[in-house]
Amino acid sequence: MTEKTKLIAPRLPRGFEDRTPGEIAAVGAMIDKIKAVYERYGFDPVETPLFEFTETLGKFLPDTDRPNAGVFSLQDDDEQWMSLRYDLTAPLARYFAENFETLPKPYRSYRQGYVFRNEKPGPGRFRQFMQFDADTVGAGGPEADAEMCMMMADVMDALGLAGQYVVRVNNRKVLDGVLATAGVTTDEQKLTVLRAIDKLDKFGTEGVKLLLGAGRKDESGDFTKGAGLTAEQIEPLLTYIGSGTPAEGVEKGSNAHVIATINTLAGLIGGSETGLQGVQELASIFGLVSAAGFGGRVILDPSVVRGLEYYTGPVFEIELTFQVQNEKGQPVVFGSVGGGGRYDGLVSRFRREPVPATGFSIGVSRLANALKLTGNLGSTEPAGPVVVLVMDKDQMAGYQAMVAELRNAGIRAEMFLGNTKNFGKQVAYADKRNAPAVIIEGSQEREQGILQIKDLIAGKQAAAAITDNAEWKAARPGQFEVKREDLVTAIKDLLAAQQ
Amino acid sequence: MTEKTKLIAPRLPRGFEDRTPGEIAAVGAMIDKIKAVYERYGFDPVETPLFEFTETLGKFLPDTDRPNAGVFSLQDDDEQWMSLRYDLTAPLARYFAENFETLPKPYRSYRQGYVFRNEKPGPGRFRQFMQFDADTVGAGGPEADAEMCMMMADVMDALGLAGQYVVRVNNRKVLDGVLATAGVTTDEQKLTVLRAIDKLDKFGTEGVKLLLGAGRKDESGDFTKGAGLTAEQIEPLLTYIGSGTPAEGVEKGSNAHVIATINTLAGLIGGSETGLQGVQELASIFGLVSAAGFGGRVILDPSVVRGLEYYTGPVFEIELTFQVQNEKGQPVVFGSVGGGGRYDGLVSRFRREPVPATGFSIGVSRLANALKLTGNLGSTEPAGPVVVLVMDKDQMAGYQAMVAELRNAGIRAEMFLGNTKNFGKQVAYADKRNAPAVIIEGSQEREQGILQIKDLIAGKQAAAAITDNAEWKAARPGQFEVKREDLVTAIKDLLAAQQ
Repeated sequence: MTEKTKLIAPRLPRGFEDRTPGEIAAVGAMIDKIKAVYERYGFDPVETPLFEFTETLGKFLPDTDRPNAGVFSLQDDDEQWMSLRYDLTAPLARYFAENFETLPKPYRSYRQGYVFRNEKPGPGRFRQFMQFDADTVGAGGPEADAEMCMMMADVMDALGLAGQYVVRVNNRKVLDGVLATAGVTTDEQKLTVLRAIDKLDKFGTEGVKLLLGAGRKDESGDFTKGAGLTAEQIEPLLTYIGSGTPAEGVEKGSNAHVIATINTLAGLIGGSETGLQGVQELASIFGLVSAAGFGGRVILDPSVVRGLEYYTGPVFEIELTFQVQNEKGQPVVFGSVGGGGRYDGLVSRFRREPVPATGFSIGVSRLANALKLTGNLGSTEPAGPVVVLVMDKDQMAGYQAMVAELRNAGIRAEMFLGNTKNFGKQVAYADKRNAPAVIIEGSQEREQGILQIKDLIAGKQAAAAITDNAEWKAARPGQFEVKREDLVTAIKDLLAAQQ
Repeated sequence: MTEKTKLIAPRLPRGFEDRTPGEIAAVGAMIDKIKAVYERYGFDPVETPLFEFTETLGKFLPDTDRPNAGVFSLQDDDEQWMSLRYDLTAPLARYFAENFETLPKPYRSYRQGYVFRNEKPGPGRFRQFMQFDADTVGAGGPEADAEMCMMMADVMDALGLAGQYVVRVNNRKVLDGVLATAGVTTDEQKLTVLRAIDKLDKFGTEGVKLLLGAGRKDESGDFTKGAGLTAEQIEPLLTYIGSGTPAEGVEKGSNAHVIATINTLAGLIGGSETGLQGVQELASIFGLVSAAGFGGRVILDPSVVRGLEYYTGPVFEIELTFQVQNEKGQPVVFGSVGGGGRYDGLVSRFRREPVPATGFSIGVSRLANALKLTGNLGSTEPAGPVVVLVMDKDQMAGYQAMVAELRNAGIRAEMFLGNTKNFGKQVAYADKRNAPAVIIEGSQEREQGILQIKDLIAGKQAAAAITDNAEWKAARPGQFEVKREDLVTAIKDLLAAQQ
């Protein structure tokens, strides 16, 4: 490569990011805790590939106005369209249908992996991110939905978030009943309405009202077309959204609150049979939730609708309730770290018979961020290796032997492999690696059959100022001599003392 | 969805596959063992996203005649070309260049994840597969290459493959010297030659001879164009390929064999300085390998070239030497499960100064398959949950409470969530899940404050024939009664007895 070759800028496309050792370890520990709960609940792991046929995934994403409907797609050699999965639910439906004959039914599985969205990335909005899902396929009763919600509450407890979350539950069928009563009948209009309601946290009641009507212009001047409902249609919908607010003196999330809300909802659905079914399912779910002692942690909230199109009944959302500051420095609740619901139609796209299913998806990065903010994420600095310094280039085999002895004793160790001319750079490297110690063997030490060991934790501060060999040898901060044959024992003692 | 809706076929695009619980657990355990070795050697984890800008990755794949040069690429919203990574090395070069100021140098990292190839899939050839790499960036000396090879030998030992592998080592610079002597000078011709030599295991010496000359027609009649060398040019190349064969009486992989091969190579490179450098590097590497006691496990083999274009010096390959049968039922050695080499030019694509680097990549699925064949892969059946059967649909809360008690005691447990009308189906489900036991509480038991516990391991054979409640109650294979309050204790005892 000549000097004139144009250099390539080392950078990532927007919405993608690298993960450091600390993040990998901390998120790994978090995932292990979640896995333990999922497995205790009887769920087994499964993994599907990142690509599926485009028609397999279907188009269920909220922002259908974007190019490619939010999905990364391409044609393979056989001219068939393939897409990168945008969630872990659509691939599960394919997997279950493909393996219908052999899988146990109901089928409980958990899945962890990256999903992709071809969207405009923004702060905290990525085009590749990790989800961690659990689903029960082939179970139609509300006890399956109740279990999902209680499991998620147990997951939050296992992560140390007790008292700082609620699992909010609603039922799309209730909304269907309210919509029927309000005269909203087309699928397209229904979808626009539920996506408007899904924006309640973001835009408030006034914003939702605009999105239910003609539309809403945001601060940048961009206009989002509304559902086009009349004021008479909008009114019962706003009543519905507010129906979860407890009356004065009623504790939020208490049994009395749940019963009152269910009664209000029963009044809003008019004569809709679907609506009534939804109300009954909610009553069953909260009966089980209350009996199992999850009341107050799993709560009824009619404003929860979820953005995905494929939900058919109960929908859930985990909300973290502690406060953080938004970009403008205003205090806001941390908000959603996951959600899900019942999707009885997704598997039926592949099979004639109806296959009910319910599931939950956790946004891993967002949850990890929440754990970091609340001090529940594990330590982030990996323990460094013992570094054997290279004092004489022609003695590599000897240094290599020391490293091998340490490694064989289970001790993390390495020989310095960079430019060995500058002693200070070797020590600086060891410091940067969080090395507990460095091993020094010059010609003098070799003659005497000894080694110098420098405890970098003990000598850290003093070492920072030393840049050359002579000065080092004079000061010897935290440094001691051992016989060559006592290397492993000495390092074991040093590591034990540093604990 | 009406009966007439066209059903979607539940299937995956070719070259992609699902992973079962057993595979996930077994491969996870294998990966943990590899990680432990990498970490003991001082390597830290890092993870890059699956997408990079297309120009970041560059085009280094062997089969450039395929559409898209083997890479999955697409344009994002900003019209920039992005590609899915085809290996874990090109992204590392970008990561190192991007974080040059803050990373320790040399920088040792390991990375695990999926890579993608837009190729025609075949048996054992996937379009998504997992690699597990380790690399040292910023270390130019042969001691870094020697360490890579010794670490891979230690990885194979840690996986239980001692005595069943060799790490084969060569140096591209030696081949460059031989090519210069043979009058092969253009980059394109050189690349064709090294890819021809890379096919030695597959096509034998005769096949390579054809690929070095006019070209080779395969069994299906497809013709691969050759390098177009003359017979005079081909001859020294074939001598070179065969130069690793030990003379009679010399043990393969012994010190004597290494020294003899190095001498032969020195005679084949003519006056080429690059060639001489290559021979000297090999001598240094094998000096360290021998001193560290890895002789015979890490061996010199001039026929190793590796297909990737970016290697600049030493190249490595892990070969598993035990025999398996190929598709035609013929005995063949298992072959390569990973490889790597030195790639000093890859980071320089992003930075003016030269940045040497060396690394190794393990093919995870192929290695897992090898472990399976040699009995070194872990157990594949996950332990099943205790299943609480649903005898009365109006007693869900009670069954739910039993499950919660078991889970809170750390026992994997679930309530049956399917259609509860058919008792036999509930038991069949528990069997399919490998459940250690089922819990039965009918109205009679509830009145008496007891539970029936059925040990499914003890009663497995007898249970298979029983399909209805009455018959079950009469036979009661492996079944016993406990007081309701003794549920957890009884199950703990049962699980302990099953160990």
